[in-house]
Amino acid sequence: MIDEEYMRLALQMAESTQGQTSPNPAVGAIVVNNGNVVGMGAHLQAGQAHAEVHALSMAGDQAEGATIYITLEPCSHFGKTPPCANLIIEKNIKRAVIATLDPNPDVGGQGVKKLEQAGIEVTTGVEKEKAYWLNRYFFHFIRTGTPYVTLKTAASLDGKTATNSGESQWITGSKAREDSHVLRHQHDAILVGIGTVLQDDPTLTARLKNGANHPIRVVLDRHLRIPLSAKMLQDDYASVWVFCSKEADNNKMELLEKAGVSVFPCSTSSVDIKEVLQTLAENQVLSVYVEGGASVHGSFLEAKAFQEMVCYMAPKLIGGKAAPSVIGGEGIASITEVPHVNIRSVEHVGNDLKITTVYKE
Amino acid sequence: MIDEEYMRLALQMAESTQGQTSPNPAVGAIVVNNGNVVGMGAHLQAGQAHAEVHALSMAGDQAEGATIYITLEPCSHFGKTPPCANLIIEKNIKRAVIATLDPNPDVGGQGVKKLEQAGIEVTTGVEKEKAYWLNRYFFHFIRTGTPYVTLKTAASLDGKTATNSGESQWITGSKAREDSHVLRHQHDAILVGIGTVLQDDPTLTARLKNGANHPIRVVLDRHLRIPLSAKMLQDDYASVWVFCSKEADNNKMELLEKAGVSVFPCSTSSVDIKEVLQTLAENQVLSVYVEGGASVHGSFLEAKAFQEMVCYMAPKLIGGKAAPSVIGGEGIASITEVPHVNIRSVEHVGNDLKITTVYKE
Repeated sequence: MIDEEYMRLALQMAESTQGQTSPNPAVGAIVVNNGNVVGMGAHLQAGQAHAEVHALSMAGDQAEGATIYITLEPCSHFGKTPPCANLIIEKNIKRAVIATLDPNPDVGGQGVKKLEQAGIEVTTGVEKEKAYWLNRYFFHFIRTGTPYVTLKTAASLDGKTATNSGESQWITGSKAREDSHVLRHQHDAILVGIGTVLQDDPTLTARLKNGANHPIRVVLDRHLRIPLSAKMLQDDYASVWVFCSKEADNNKMELLEKAGVSVFPCSTSSVDIKEVLQTLAENQVLSVYVEGGASVHGSFLEAKAFQEMVCYMAPKLIGGKAAPSVIGGEGIASITEVPHVNIRSVEHVGNDLKITTVYKE
Repeated sequence: MIDEEYMRLALQMAESTQGQTSPNPAVGAIVVNNGNVVGMGAHLQAGQAHAEVHALSMAGDQAEGATIYITLEPCSHFGKTPPCANLIIEKNIKRAVIATLDPNPDVGGQGVKKLEQAGIEVTTGVEKEKAYWLNRYFFHFIRTGTPYVTLKTAASLDGKTATNSGESQWITGSKAREDSHVLRHQHDAILVGIGTVLQDDPTLTARLKNGANHPIRVVLDRHLRIPLSAKMLQDDYASVWVFCSKEADNNKMELLEKAGVSVFPCSTSSVDIKEVLQTLAENQVLSVYVEGGASVHGSFLEAKAFQEMVCYMAPKLIGGKAAPSVIGGEGIASITEVPHVNIRSVEHVGNDLKITTVYKE
């Protein structure tokens, strides 16, 4: 196997842990000695051992003179665990291949420097783009200080989320819905508007055959209309955070807080998307999965406050001038102002299409 | 090369003539003698020589003992040209490989029978599905007596054809628009609603670098509102056919006919899609390319009167509850009644996506 192949395997190992390492990134490592894989590891959870520690522990004595492949630059500072760069040096690793540098401007490049100073041959940038994509939530958060926002839509090919009579269950198939639960598992928070809560009364949990991590449930609810009987308030799967306007009813706020809900009044009469994202960032939410409905999607679109959009499209045609569209609100008035996205992938998920796009302002 | 490879080449040769052979199908033929290609041909235009005639003429004496690959069963009857089956027999072809049988129930299989009776070894069904797709307009027309209908849409990823302020030029890119002109060239007729004529005043011609065949221009115009000054009435590129209700104004009808337009009043107070298609069929229109607008698409959807839908999607997000959607009209009310389509292909055309779907009721 060549460098790129070892790195791709390390990336796949890391990918399997997406959604369980936040606020840390997902990282994989492989140790190869004389053409033989002797160690493999991934970082499993914040506060626990880093990928390099697992891989080097598995390698034991065979780490001596070996090459280590790591999807992210090893840390060079004392955090919750001792620096991995030191460990790599102690183990007499000969060569280190690294996909991406640490995005934190204060420490980026220092791990590499430390290794090189110890006489280790270092190659960086191998499968860099894949490694960036793997940890895009983390990289975005570190660089901008705001959460990575993924808008998710599910509609017919003609962009409708329901028929003119309001029927909406189900447009996309079970495979697409399952796939969407993987994305719930991978994000720190899931966000919907109060309209969705009142209409569908969802639990917003992540439901997968092997279990899943439930994202924090965020509801945009200007007038605090969320009923105390809402399903998501009856379980302990994940916190519920409600954002309202500064004029929202204090009594309702108290009742909700007694029911275990965290209520965040905004500084204005509306619920401003950028303010919501700022508050989420302050509360260590690195990534937000926005499930809609149409007005909420409209707000994020108008604020140009998103990084990715995942469109599940069912091979169905609903039609109808009055049937609801996938993105509502005001929308963009001028064609020259319309956000352009890049199509990253088009996949078949069951009978549906999944189009993943990225937006860079 | 193996049978499938020769047949795929013959199919590609035929494909290059799509849009120039109607009401005949596109057909390709290759003659192979002792592993060497000795003849190639395609049917170029109705009334002219069939593919086999060209290929056998090129082969000359080398046709003796050769194998002929034909994308469609050779004719066995005297039409505008003598039967190709006879020619194949005369030329002492040893083996014939045929992709699809003639779809006409009266003559299908008779060409094969004639060849077999003359001692020629016949293999059928090689690359059958591709051969059916190539001549889907022809096959559908022969089998059902109605034109093959392709709905075409061009929208943003969220299904919008314009912003909330009505801006619509351009959502898809120049490559997608060029691709759509290939489809105009390939269909016998192009169809739009009067709304599109009044709003955009299009010529509806097929414009490609090497030139193109212009489809018959069909306008659904219940009240005969089309202005005599409409651009498409000022040129001779192709006929203009207007369908109106039975109550449409007779004076306007006369004026239009004087301007060279064919006016078809329907039997009812509206313009019924199925009646329009019946009339088009009676006038040897095998295929119709429906460009919209949204209400016309809605009518075809509601009547479930289409076989294919081509969606060009620009990687843009427009949003807006009031921004127009790609399929308007009433739409389908019940989710269980919604037409399901099969996704045949997803292609990147410039920066846009082209999703081709087929509908089988």
